[in-house]
Amino acid sequence: MVFAKPPVILSSYSVVGPKEGQGPLGKTFDKVWKDDLNGEKSWEVAESKMLQEAMNGAINQASVPKEQIDFMLAGDLLNQIISSNFAARQMALPFIGLYGACSTMALGIAVGSMLIDGGFAQKVLVGVSSHHDTAERQYRLPTEQGAQRAMSAQWTVTGAGSVLLGSDGAGPRVTSATIGRVIDFAVKDVNNMGAAMAPAVADTILNHFHDRQLRPVDYNLIASGDLGAVGLALACELLKQSGMDMGTNFTDCGVMIYDESQDTHSGASGCGCSSVVLAGDILQRIKAGELKRVMLVGSGALHSPTSALQGESIPGIGHAVVIEG
Amino acid sequence: MVFAKPPVILSSYSVVGPKEGQGPLGKTFDKVWKDDLNGEKSWEVAESKMLQEAMNGAINQASVPKEQIDFMLAGDLLNQIISSNFAARQMALPFIGLYGACSTMALGIAVGSMLIDGGFAQKVLVGVSSHHDTAERQYRLPTEQGAQRAMSAQWTVTGAGSVLLGSDGAGPRVTSATIGRVIDFAVKDVNNMGAAMAPAVADTILNHFHDRQLRPVDYNLIASGDLGAVGLALACELLKQSGMDMGTNFTDCGVMIYDESQDTHSGASGCGCSSVVLAGDILQRIKAGELKRVMLVGSGALHSPTSALQGESIPGIGHAVVIEG
Repeated sequence: MVFAKPPVILSSYSVVGPKEGQGPLGKTFDKVWKDDLNGEKSWEVAESKMLQEAMNGAINQASVPKEQIDFMLAGDLLNQIISSNFAARQMALPFIGLYGACSTMALGIAVGSMLIDGGFAQKVLVGVSSHHDTAERQYRLPTEQGAQRAMSAQWTVTGAGSVLLGSDGAGPRVTSATIGRVIDFAVKDVNNMGAAMAPAVADTILNHFHDRQLRPVDYNLIASGDLGAVGLALACELLKQSGMDMGTNFTDCGVMIYDESQDTHSGASGCGCSSVVLAGDILQRIKAGELKRVMLVGSGALHSPTSALQGESIPGIGHAVVIEG
Repeated sequence: MVFAKPPVILSSYSVVGPKEGQGPLGKTFDKVWKDDLNGEKSWEVAESKMLQEAMNGAINQASVPKEQIDFMLAGDLLNQIISSNFAARQMALPFIGLYGACSTMALGIAVGSMLIDGGFAQKVLVGVSSHHDTAERQYRLPTEQGAQRAMSAQWTVTGAGSVLLGSDGAGPRVTSATIGRVIDFAVKDVNNMGAAMAPAVADTILNHFHDRQLRPVDYNLIASGDLGAVGLALACELLKQSGMDMGTNFTDCGVMIYDESQDTHSGASGCGCSSVVLAGDILQRIKAGELKRVMLVGSGALHSPTSALQGESIPGIGHAVVIEG
């Protein structure tokens, strides 16, 4: 989709946990929590509060009365997207719940942009969160157990990012988007999500460039989110095999957010990751004029613990949005 | 939202389990499975296959090449919406995953109609499923345990419904939609979802009539989905307290699909319910000229077993779509 009148990113806000605050992008986030609970009685409640904080932060930064917002689009990794549902209860806005696993930020921006450019909304709030401890105990093992992680595993980000999209105003613009298809290369290793998602990211990138008749050099930055180091290398390889040389501007939000000293193995995952890297670092660099045209390719692993236990492979999806300064 | 050029429901298809086939709407469904597994090795795989069957059925009934479909919108009740994700893997269409609990059919039609009327798609496939046995073991208790159910509890429908929306063609039209807000009246009883969802349904109905300056008598049928008998009575009461007499045309898909002899207590739930009642009975009566203007108010309980165990109440949501013959 190419937007006739590209929606504007009026504001953005990011809230992260302490580990993310200590990483190389620490200074780009609007708020860093001192611990992962932030005074709440459970990690789940904390995650939903973090999402509310991000969304309210975006609203405040844009100085827009909440009543002017037509839709709230949100999603997260928890069963029945409860972080988003309980945040929506507090926001009291018309609410569309999305599930795209780690691709949800890009999906939300794509759908929100269609609602605005289609004439159904003037302002759409998009918010996405993940939390390391809620995700670990739901998808893998209780963190208290201290199980050893595989070197191909990614570390779920504790973070919530939000953007407020508008039909008019000043700011970076969402100029086009490509909604992905589900692609499954029969990867069954739940400790290697990057490998499971890489084919879907490659497919969406190829489709985007084919549809738009553009090449990777036409973008200052192409960031997937979140393949991690293992998945990023595989996506590069798959694209190369399809004749697409991605050049030097292709990276991954899950590679950007932590550094090697933080012991996260293959990097970061969790839909909070690409949402805070976009809301922080990427949008700041666009606003500073450093980046002119950026593609964010949200990548999601669309499995569940039940499907994994039943022997199913991990289907992946990638959604791309293009943001221009 | 009022659609400038109302999208057309080009076709619909419904697949249900044996219990639904034996109910009062049995003859309105396109396909009735002989048992809830249908030869698959797990209920989860069966549910995803049922959803694929419904979506392929809708495509075939419209005689539309699959390549012409711009988006697939789908959702279900399982963790990480795996029924939809695995169905999307087989359909290989650009996929937007939705989570609205039992409101998902109305939500999908509303979002799909915006994508079409906004000019981003010519054809959108919407599919929604639920399965009694997958939902019971995920949300409540293993069915093998044979636990006694509360009289206020609803029975999750085994069913998948799909509609194919188009920008042009013949058929009933989606003329308007109202996206709901999350409303929470602090109901904590997970055996009484109807009570938890009734305030959200009432809120959406009131907002719809206020926005559109219409009254209940302007519709031949207003069907919520799915409040069950307990929730429907509460919604009527709440609306009456707000000065809105719903008259005799207000009912609930969860009340329509089973009869009293089927021992389902308060009626049906599960997002398959409103999807198959719409795809079957309601659309057939619209096409026959019996109903001219219908409002479907999908209702969702946006909790999770984790949030319930943590003492949270059950937030509800209602999304309305208006379909005219």
